This record gives sequence, structure tokens and C-alpha cells, in this order.
Amino acid sequence: VSAADRRRFSGTRCVVTGGLGFIGSNVALALADAGAEVTVVDALVDGHGGDAANVDGSAVRVVIADVGDVGAVAPVVTGADHVFDLAGQGSHIAGARDPERDFDLNAVARLRFLEILRRARPGGPTVFASTRQVYGRPATLPLTEDHPPRPTDVNGVAKLAAEYLHLLQDDGSVILRLSNVYGPRQHLRRDDLGVLPVFFRRALRGEPLVVFGGGADARDALYVEDVVEAILVAALTPEAAGRVMNIGHEEHMALWRMAELIAAASPAGPPVVAGDWPLEHARVDVGSVYTSSSLATEVLGWQPEVPFDDGVARTLEWFAQHPERYDG
Amino acid sequence: VSAADRRRFSGTRCVVTGGLGFIGSNVALALADAGAEVTVVDALVDGHGGDAANVDGSAVRVVIADVGDVGAVAPVVTGADHVFDLAGQGSHIAGARDPERDFDLNAVARLRFLEILRRARPGGPTVFASTRQVYGRPATLPLTEDHPPRPTDVNGVAKLAAEYLHLLQDDGSVILRLSNVYGPRQHLRRDDLGVLPVFFRRALRGEPLVVFGGGADARDALYVEDVVEAILVAALTPEAAGRVMNIGHEEHMALWRMAELIAAASPAGPPVVAGDWPLEHARVDVGSVYTSSSLATEVLGWQPEVPFDDGVARTLEWFAQHPERYDG
Repeated sequence: VSAADRRRFSGTRCVVTGGLGFIGSNVALALADAGAEVTVVDALVDGHGGDAANVDGSAVRVVIADVGDVGAVAPVVTGADHVFDLAGQGSHIAGARDPERDFDLNAVARLRFLEILRRARPGGPTVFASTRQVYGRPATLPLTEDHPPRPTDVNGVAKLAAEYLHLLQDDGSVILRLSNVYGPRQHLRRDDLGVLPVFFRRALRGEPLVVFGGGADARDALYVEDVVEAILVAALTPEAAGRVMNIGHEEHMALWRMAELIAAASPAGPPVVAGDWPLEHARVDVGSVYTSSSLATEVLGWQPEVPFDDGVARTLEWFAQHPERYDG
Repeated sequence: VSAADRRRFSGTRCVVTGGLGFIGSNVALALADAGAEVTVVDALVDGHGGDAANVDGSAVRVVIADVGDVGAVAPVVTGADHVFDLAGQGSHIAGARDPERDFDLNAVARLRFLEILRRARPGGPTVFASTRQVYGRPATLPLTEDHPPRPTDVNGVAKLAAEYLHLLQDDGSVILRLSNVYGPRQHLRRDDLGVLPVFFRRALRGEPLVVFGGGADARDALYVEDVVEAILVAALTPEAAGRVMNIGHEEHMALWRMAELIAAASPAGPPVVAGDWPLEHARVDVGSVYTSSSLATEVLGWQPEVPFDDGVARTLEWFAQHPERYDG
């Protein structure tokens, strides 16, 4: 979205679920910067990476509530111009530990939320942040949207069910299947929210980066500003309604190489070392996986702008200015 | 399954969820006839078509419980040789009226059930009865398994989520996507369990058969004994584990023609008349839809044996002997 396009959000009422989380807060702040009146709905579910500090000092309004709580959510979405549904359990490990809770948070609460939306009839298509993890183990690479989904855990099933629930909306939501995202405001303190935040935390603290299983598996990684861009342009593109689109990066590389680049870019410059898979991680390993975003380029005119080394540098710089986000 | 193959169930312990329902009870009785020790688990959820009379006079043991009730279900499935998961909300109309309840019954309870199975580790792959309705509106006909699913209502999303949950099982369940099924023990009294049972009830009562929307849309219909056969052979075919297969009929015809055949075969011989779609039915209409079972033929060696006119005659004959099942 050009700066001019971002101004199209000026004066609009926007709702961001999960808006205290990593991606959600970056979207909320970008909308507020563009002049939108932004309300975030976030339950601050323990372990999901939500942090009220993420929107501190901004004009973003915060409603602490479950997205399925009709009393809290209906007044917020009624009359909204844009809805961004970015809430959700993102930890596959936590999902494996308590599948029913994961399913409840990602699918059942979302069903309730969509019922609230249906009645409130906000304007425009809702944008839903899904994940490339719905594909499971790739049969072909890069993953395109016609690759059959076959999730490998309950978290993936819940996310896929959430996609299909979104597609039932009268207008059809825009479904974005995100690759691994990193950047400012990511929750770095936990070990179960993905491999990249663990790499960044260890790099910032000067601790060795441990790569499991040899690190030969490739990934594509997205700097969060590229993701924010995709989400905003999706909301402004009527033809995107009812579409399912990968949001990934054409630059993909082995996890070992990602670890090396992150470690080398950190002032502390810690070593990268090999480790064995912890048992509960091995269960959700899917080999190399990266996606093609050519459909998103066609429909949205979007493509990622930030190469990995640049995104890493910007991420380390932001956290260096916010040591409370990775220390202790 | 030949008679000899059916004897392979002799002395085995079999569990059938939804075993008081239409398909479930036919499976349970067939297993009991083959000499299996059969336990059905059925919550007799109001409006689902379950009826304790379905297994009256048989050796089938009945446990009235929700499939997600670990205290009731764990002892039943522990040490079981075969598990047939045939429970579930089958009414799209009821699902539209109370989506959250539908989702809870079809997806959330199933997640709990599968957790129970995972711990109890019964032998062999579980057979799960899904529905061709997970495909939604067909882009091509006949529907094959590589047609992307795109459910058109919450019931379809819940069934699809249930499939993906089943595929997470260590061995992988066998997923059978059933076309419209009819036959003995079907619940005929409600209007929201499909068009065929309504046709049969009206034919038996001598009431006009009302066909909505012109009746030009085609369907394939399966006599329940063909479905029982598919389910039993799936349980005896190790290569079927983790496969998703259509179970349909190569004979497909316009709904109007089906109504005519049913009406003509009934002694009462009522007329077939045109009617307008009730509003809540129109929401889930998907046009012509029928599936190819060639994958099931390849993997299971199964194909339907009962042509529609023969199945209709047998169904009417059974109900004529059980007037309490459609009268009053």
C-alpha cells in the first residue's frame, strides 16, 4: 500500500483481534499511524505473546476480551469499516500439550466471533491471518494454494477450520496463509512460539543458537512490515474477498543459514551449534517448507520488500532499544 | 466383504459410535451377525435419528454416553479390535440454526474421542463416516477426492475438521465421504435430515412428494447395505489407513426422478408435486452433486451393488413391516 493508499484508512473505524500480539499490534499501530480509529480486542491469553506494552503510547483503544464474548465484541464491531482477525493460539507445542484448549481458542471462539460479525455486518471483507502450517508436509515446493492441506497437528486443523468458517461469511473473508514472521514486538521469551524468536533472543543475549536436526530444512521468513503491508492491502482489495492466498518470501534458506545470519548480525556474535530435536518438537517437524506468493502478487499487487539480512538487522536494532523485551 | 470375510469379525470386539442411529445401527447389527462382540456408544442426541429400537432384540451392547466422555468411553475402546466412528450431527438445517452446538458435537466432541482412542490404542485403523457435503458446490462432476473441499455451512466445516483430526491419528483413520444414504432404520419423521427420508415418509403415508426448485439437480443415492459393506471392508483393509475415499453410486439422477420412483414404488402411489425452496433449505443448496468411487474400488475393491429402484423397493418393504417408524 502506498502512503496515499494508507491514507484511505484515515477516519475509518478498524478492529484488530489479537491486537496486543506480535502481528496484531504492528497492524494496529500502522492503522493508527494512517489516521484510523483503532480498537483492538485481545484476551491476553497466557502464552500467546500478547503484551499491552505493544500499543503503549499510541491512540489505539484496547478491549480486553475473548473474541467470542458477544457482550464485549458486538459493540466494537458494529459499524466498523474494517475487521482484521489476527487473534489465535500460535504455538504448536502448546497445542500438542492441550489440544482441546487450542481448538477452543482457534476454532470455537472464532465461530462465535464470526456469528457476532454476521449480525453486526461491518463493512468490507474481514482479513484473517492463517498459517502455511495448514499444508503440513509439502508434496511439492514452493507450496501453492492448490496444494491439498493436510495439517500435522491439532493447531493446524483448528486454523484450517477457522479458514473454512471465515469463507462462510456472506462476502467471504480474505485468508492469508503466513510463512514464518519475525520482527519488532515479537514475543521472544518463550521457546514454543517458533524457531526464529528463539534465535533472536539467544543472539541478543549472546547465548549459542542451537539448531535442531542439522538445520538443512529450508524456510521462508517474512519481516513483519511486509506482513502488515499484505494485511492492509488485502482489506482495500474487494477482489480479494473469499480468496485464500499465501503470504511468503521468494528468498528461502536453510535454518542453519538463518541462525548464522542472525548470530553474525548481533553485536554479541554468539556461535551456532547443533542439537538434537527435543521430543515434542520432532512431532511437528515437516521438513523443508516455503510458499509461493504469486497469487497474492496477482490479486493484491503485493510482494515482500525486505530481504532477510535487512529484516534481521532492523529486528536486532529494535530489540536493542527495548532490552526489557528479551532480557530476564 | 464376502461372507467368509465377514467371519473375520467373529470373536472380535467392535465399537460403533452413533450405533443407535441409521448407519450406525445397520453396521452394529451386521457386525453382531458376523459374530463380533459389539458395543455401541450413542448419546441419543435429540434430533439426530438415534433410536434404541434400532438394535432391539440383538446382542449389541449399548452405552448411552457422549463420545467425548472419557469415563464412559475409555473402558469401551480399550482393547477393542475395530472402532467405527459413525456418530455425528447430520442435519445441515439444525446446524444452521445452532452452529456452535453443531460444531461442538461434530468437531470438539470428536477431538476428545480421538484423544481417548490415542491413549487406549485400539487395534487397526478407525473408520470414520464423513460426507460428500465437505466438497460444497462442485466445480467438476463427478466429484473425485482431489476436488478441493469448500464446505458451504458450519456442519460441513465441522465434518471436514473431524476428518483432519482423524488423519492425525498415528495409523490414520479411514475416511469415507458418503453420498446420500437411504434404507431401513433411517429416521423418517423429521424434515431436516435430508430429502430422501422425507420422500420415503410421504410415499409411505400416501402424501404428495414435494420437490423444491424444479428437481433437476442430480444426486447419487446409496442403499445402506452398500454403505455397511464399504465400512466393513475399510476396517479389514490395512492399506486404507490414512486414505480419504468417496463412497457413492455411479447411478445418479435428478431429484424429481428419484421422487417419482419412490412414489411409484409405494402402494399408496402419491403424486409428485413442485414446491418452492423453504428459505432455510435454499441456504445449503449446492446444485447437482454426485461422486466417483473409483478410488474406493481401487483401494477397497468396493462398489455399490444395489441399484436405486431395488433399494427403494427394499426400503419400502422394511418400513411397511415397521409402520411405527413412519406413522404419527
